[in-house]
Amino acid sequence: MAKQQKQALQQVAGNGLLSRRHLLGLGLSGAGLAASHSLVAQDSGLAFSIPQWSRQPGPGSSPYGSPSPHSSHIQRMSGTPNPGYPGGGASRSPLQFLQGSITPNSLHFERHHAGVPAIDPAGHRLVINGLVRQPLAFSYEDLLRYPMVSRIHFLECSGNSGAMLRSNTADSAATAQSIHGLVSCAEWTGVPLSVLLEEAGVLNQASWVAAVGADAASMGRSLPLAKALDDVMIALYQNGEPIRPEQGYPMRLFVPGWEGNISVKWLTQLKLLDEAAQFRDETSKYTDTLADRSSLQFTYPMGVKSLITSPSGQMQLNNPGVYEVGGIAWSGHGSISRVEISADGGRSWADAELQSQVHDRALTRFRLPWQWRGGEAILQSRAHDSRGNVQPTRSSILAARGNIATYHNNGIQSWSVNTAGELRNVYA
Amino acid sequence: MAKQQKQALQQVAGNGLLSRRHLLGLGLSGAGLAASHSLVAQDSGLAFSIPQWSRQPGPGSSPYGSPSPHSSHIQRMSGTPNPGYPGGGASRSPLQFLQGSITPNSLHFERHHAGVPAIDPAGHRLVINGLVRQPLAFSYEDLLRYPMVSRIHFLECSGNSGAMLRSNTADSAATAQSIHGLVSCAEWTGVPLSVLLEEAGVLNQASWVAAVGADAASMGRSLPLAKALDDVMIALYQNGEPIRPEQGYPMRLFVPGWEGNISVKWLTQLKLLDEAAQFRDETSKYTDTLADRSSLQFTYPMGVKSLITSPSGQMQLNNPGVYEVGGIAWSGHGSISRVEISADGGRSWADAELQSQVHDRALTRFRLPWQWRGGEAILQSRAHDSRGNVQPTRSSILAARGNIATYHNNGIQSWSVNTAGELRNVYA
Repeated sequence: MAKQQKQALQQVAGNGLLSRRHLLGLGLSGAGLAASHSLVAQDSGLAFSIPQWSRQPGPGSSPYGSPSPHSSHIQRMSGTPNPGYPGGGASRSPLQFLQGSITPNSLHFERHHAGVPAIDPAGHRLVINGLVRQPLAFSYEDLLRYPMVSRIHFLECSGNSGAMLRSNTADSAATAQSIHGLVSCAEWTGVPLSVLLEEAGVLNQASWVAAVGADAASMGRSLPLAKALDDVMIALYQNGEPIRPEQGYPMRLFVPGWEGNISVKWLTQLKLLDEAAQFRDETSKYTDTLADRSSLQFTYPMGVKSLITSPSGQMQLNNPGVYEVGGIAWSGHGSISRVEISADGGRSWADAELQSQVHDRALTRFRLPWQWRGGEAILQSRAHDSRGNVQPTRSSILAARGNIATYHNNGIQSWSVNTAGELRNVYA
Repeated sequence: MAKQQKQALQQVAGNGLLSRRHLLGLGLSGAGLAASHSLVAQDSGLAFSIPQWSRQPGPGSSPYGSPSPHSSHIQRMSGTPNPGYPGGGASRSPLQFLQGSITPNSLHFERHHAGVPAIDPAGHRLVINGLVRQPLAFSYEDLLRYPMVSRIHFLECSGNSGAMLRSNTADSAATAQSIHGLVSCAEWTGVPLSVLLEEAGVLNQASWVAAVGADAASMGRSLPLAKALDDVMIALYQNGEPIRPEQGYPMRLFVPGWEGNISVKWLTQLKLLDEAAQFRDETSKYTDTLADRSSLQFTYPMGVKSLITSPSGQMQLNNPGVYEVGGIAWSGHGSISRVEISADGGRSWADAELQSQVHDRALTRFRLPWQWRGGEAILQSRAHDSRGNVQPTRSSILAARGNIATYHNNGIQSWSVNTAGELRNVYA
């Protein structure tokens, strides 16, 4: 079974990227590299040393579980509260500590405009009115009786990764979480909006749906009717359980593939209109102002994007050897078809393996082994989607759009590795 | 947009099962049925009544979120602790309150043989020894450097639903959770066991892998080598985050499609053998003793199965009308290809719609509208898998196996509805 031990390591791109068929550790000790495991000597006491926790029974089962205290460093990261913006701000998912494609509910990123309202579902209503044959009001219990669909989708704030465009100098202290943590992925279950709109009877002159939340900001966004009738849902469950308060409990709009802000949380009103409502958050915010001071409005879909999460900013390679390079890729236009990795700042690229199940508009995890020989390197990833879109470089985005607006940044992230093995955020 | 309002309701099987193309509420008020929503009168104050939670900002973001207090009834259900079996027992997932296919980590069922050990990963080792070229020991940090795969899979205790076989009288107080709650589903991420076995170098005479946990029960199970080399992983993450203590933190074996007990938690040893180890939990337990007192051993895969979770035991239909009938289906042999529903105790069947994304050996959610006219009914579901297996009836299982052993029960569940709209567990 150890046939492959003597195989040479197959290089697939510059600066040490290896064939994805190489599995870490597989025969690497034979190649003179540090294997990550320990060999067990026949007389080693290791297998026979019984730790304390194996010597006595532990506590039994529990109603609602929580992580190990040894995982307590895996937390969302919030900015400093702003007294002039009570409850406002965001928290970022700890991307560099997660694996797979699903984000657990407790670690899904947040973005609030007036904090988290403490809604009692018994007092909450969803009203559909405006250009409809018959205005309707739905209680939470009403909606639970409707047919639902379940889909795995990412959600990304359009302001995610904006720091990469905003600053001319790369923040060398940045991590995957601090720059890119406003993206997460869950299985969302809810009532197709089309079902409720058919029941209300949309009038012919309607072409937009204005969605408003029950938070104190009355967060409002306008959605073209065609999208509303396509794949939008009133989400009631996230990863199986009722959605969390910070995600819109008891209900939120969920708009697959589009900027997170339009998936209005604590949804309380859907008004059918013959034009966009021009809410504050689609005029003074969430528009893309170009270098010539003209602004793009309603640039909804999030572009194809990827990110290496391991190794990433503030991590440390302790010894030369073979490392897994891994990360996440997603696109608001479809599914991920391919991810490439470069270890030489984009001069050469190799195809990564997609290690998670691929879903439409969902996080997809990729990997490739990389032999770090102790020299300098710049690690990058570049995603492709099923519609043929390719993730652009940061400099091409700046050339096309300038850096006045920093929404919708899907540029390639670069992590430098120095000869001490330290990973830093850089522009390359 | 309200064209369908005047359509007659299309019956697809006896006792009120409707075409899955009917969406609840869609035109049903026109058919004389109680619509679940309220109509909003033009002068209604409803849309303009501002609840308290919309009047002032709420608290900001948080490091690790939790459910709404209004969801606090959604909990795992444990049996009464047994002083003679410290830490032993199980907790059951609240299936009737969940949606979609993913079970959130905090609500995944548990089964412990000596409680939950409080493992510090820095002191934990996974040893691979026995019939290998080179015994190896892996720390948690070692394993994190290996390539991983991510797959969505159910896990089911082989004792799940055993009460249906054990008792000749159906427990009328039973719920979906109390009978069937030892099944859950998650995205598991870990290192393919084949990678580690190749590294250790499995000797030709080896044909079994004995897996042992670090709990005080030293839970042990034997796994044929062919399966170990196929799709088994050392799971390190569950739904994106490190697996929870009650699921085996820092690492567990994960054996897709097979009875849960063999996915040994707190995994600390894998010993390669030329025969099964004959551990306590594969001899005195987890064997299927037939009516003639012979026993089947190593009956690993969990059969094709389904369950209506809504409406289900202890629920109440308040008024005649159209209801969603929904539930979950799964198979240890492959993916779910079809689920049928009956409202007349199995005399007629109609195909349900699969509402979640279908994955290999994962929970799949189904739905079908049902018109309850106020009479008696018996609701059943019957699943089919991609390998052509069909879920059997309870009586056919009893005829084939007797009821000495109650493992591996995948029989059809029946819920009766009486004229008061009360749902009860019955044998039918």
